[in-house]
Amino acid sequence: MRPLEYKDGVLKLIDQTKLPAEYSVVDCKTYSEVAAAISGMIVRGAPAIGVTAAYGIAIGAMGIYTSSREIFFKELEEICNDMRSTRPTAVNLFWAIDRVYGKALSNRSKPVAEIKEIILQEALRMDSEDVDTNKKIGIHGNELIKDHWTILTHCNAGALATCGYGTALGIIRVAHEKGKKIKVFADETRPYLQGARLTAWELMQDKIPVTLICDNMAGHFMKAGKIDCVIVGADRIALNGDTANKIGTYSISVLARENNIPFYVAAPISTIDFSIKSGDEIPIEERRAEEVTHIKGIRIAPEDVTVMNPAFDVTPHKYITAIITEKGVIYPPFEENILKLK
Amino acid sequence: MRPLEYKDGVLKLIDQTKLPAEYSVVDCKTYSEVAAAISGMIVRGAPAIGVTAAYGIAIGAMGIYTSSREIFFKELEEICNDMRSTRPTAVNLFWAIDRVYGKALSNRSKPVAEIKEIILQEALRMDSEDVDTNKKIGIHGNELIKDHWTILTHCNAGALATCGYGTALGIIRVAHEKGKKIKVFADETRPYLQGARLTAWELMQDKIPVTLICDNMAGHFMKAGKIDCVIVGADRIALNGDTANKIGTYSISVLARENNIPFYVAAPISTIDFSIKSGDEIPIEERRAEEVTHIKGIRIAPEDVTVMNPAFDVTPHKYITAIITEKGVIYPPFEENILKLK
Repeated sequence: MRPLEYKDGVLKLIDQTKLPAEYSVVDCKTYSEVAAAISGMIVRGAPAIGVTAAYGIAIGAMGIYTSSREIFFKELEEICNDMRSTRPTAVNLFWAIDRVYGKALSNRSKPVAEIKEIILQEALRMDSEDVDTNKKIGIHGNELIKDHWTILTHCNAGALATCGYGTALGIIRVAHEKGKKIKVFADETRPYLQGARLTAWELMQDKIPVTLICDNMAGHFMKAGKIDCVIVGADRIALNGDTANKIGTYSISVLARENNIPFYVAAPISTIDFSIKSGDEIPIEERRAEEVTHIKGIRIAPEDVTVMNPAFDVTPHKYITAIITEKGVIYPPFEENILKLK
Repeated sequence: MRPLEYKDGVLKLIDQTKLPAEYSVVDCKTYSEVAAAISGMIVRGAPAIGVTAAYGIAIGAMGIYTSSREIFFKELEEICNDMRSTRPTAVNLFWAIDRVYGKALSNRSKPVAEIKEIILQEALRMDSEDVDTNKKIGIHGNELIKDHWTILTHCNAGALATCGYGTALGIIRVAHEKGKKIKVFADETRPYLQGARLTAWELMQDKIPVTLICDNMAGHFMKAGKIDCVIVGADRIALNGDTANKIGTYSISVLARENNIPFYVAAPISTIDFSIKSGDEIPIEERRAEEVTHIKGIRIAPEDVTVMNPAFDVTPHKYITAIITEKGVIYPPFEENILKLK
């Protein structure tokens, strides 16, 4: 299962706003359509939106009709800036844009047509690298998972959040493929219901046993001894290990520590923001009130009610047992051990 | 605002499954209709279902057409047993049934017609007592609330959960009436959305500032210093102070302690179960999967997904700062101080 597929100038995205009720694919033929798909959460998940943005830039570059390198780079920069403004929290987005743009810049003496092709090839490379990365995360993470464990996850850090296979769910997939009899508890993950709609669906496709619960039930099951470990993805990791992830992750981390349950973050190195010292510097996206007050267009709260809808929160590093990357498992002290990866 | 109103053999219940989109009143003319309204959550909230059950028994008693006391008490007992089986967790239900049945028993030498009237009068007394009780809880609780505080609440422990005024929201009402500039954060409270549908609506009617958040956001706002205290209701309190309340309450209590925020339980003495030593003995109701997988009849999760749906959890007493009752504020050691109330 892959949420994005590039072919002949078109980026095909599974519309994740409609899953699992409806499986439909959105064709993006312009970079503006790609940008709208990211901000509208047709595609979501830090690694997936990074690669999506890279394809968006490649598609945008193809649409710049000039042989002037100067004009080309001016327009390319605007495309990159538009792409940057789609969502603020996941650092993979900025990492991917910088990587593609940097690749173009380092080839700026070449003809425009060739630079366009180089951009596309870079996006394709990032796409296939991401799947490899996830499989490596899965292999490293699997070492931490014991047979018969029940694993709690939050949001969707699965195939649908990446270019395939998944980060947190990648670990679960490896453990399952290795024959471990694991079970998964999936938080439904309000307001966008990525757990109910995407994680439960993904795991059911792979016949991995999954139980859906509401977010506010996770603590109850931890206290009852039903959860052996927590694995979540990440949208941005600071140098000290502080981790931004889907809203609700912080609460789970506190509950895990209170109940002596290991709490793991699974993410590629591209999710680490080496430029920030702590989570205090991570911008938290505030999304529309309607995500909370409506479900599938149906109002579930009073009209005109005041709403707060932060899409992410920051889990301080002290609650994190380890960060699982494609280069191995990082334990505290995080800053020291993260810097070794750079 | 009162969720229940008895008049001339009919118990009128605001249909809380439909608020706030639709304000409708259900007429219960038989005890079976009352029982169905409790189990179907047309009426909910520990104090409210207690008094509702009392009225249900009164209505049921009126429908026993016999002058034989023996037959009358046999049928009355069956009615009480049916009422007992509607919901398992809130002890107020059993307390109310025992009180009404006990009152009938202690008048068993009287003519049946008179016993019926005694039962009805007892239900009416419990109804008006409950409102007084809530106002007293409000006055005691208000002493703990500072001006300009932001109070987090979970589920609905408001007028709609009682015979009027509310327990947790009763405290908020008194503080507001006394001119304190308080604000409320209301957890939406999945799966049944009592916070979004009932608490937000109730507070907006009273023009008390309320911000609606998803359950998984509460920890984030606590960590951000936006919450000054938590007040929740209760469905059953054990002798040691362990408190069963709406699912998610335990998690909030852990997050409150982690962030040095006082965590208060507001409940009438009738919510204390003097027969149990700890929360381990409280039965937790498991409700239908459809409450989690559907919202207003619309599916939000994959078909055939496995679901757990515990309606309550138990907050261990160590996370509770104080229990606010109509007789005053109970601080730890809870067992010692609860027994003084008996």
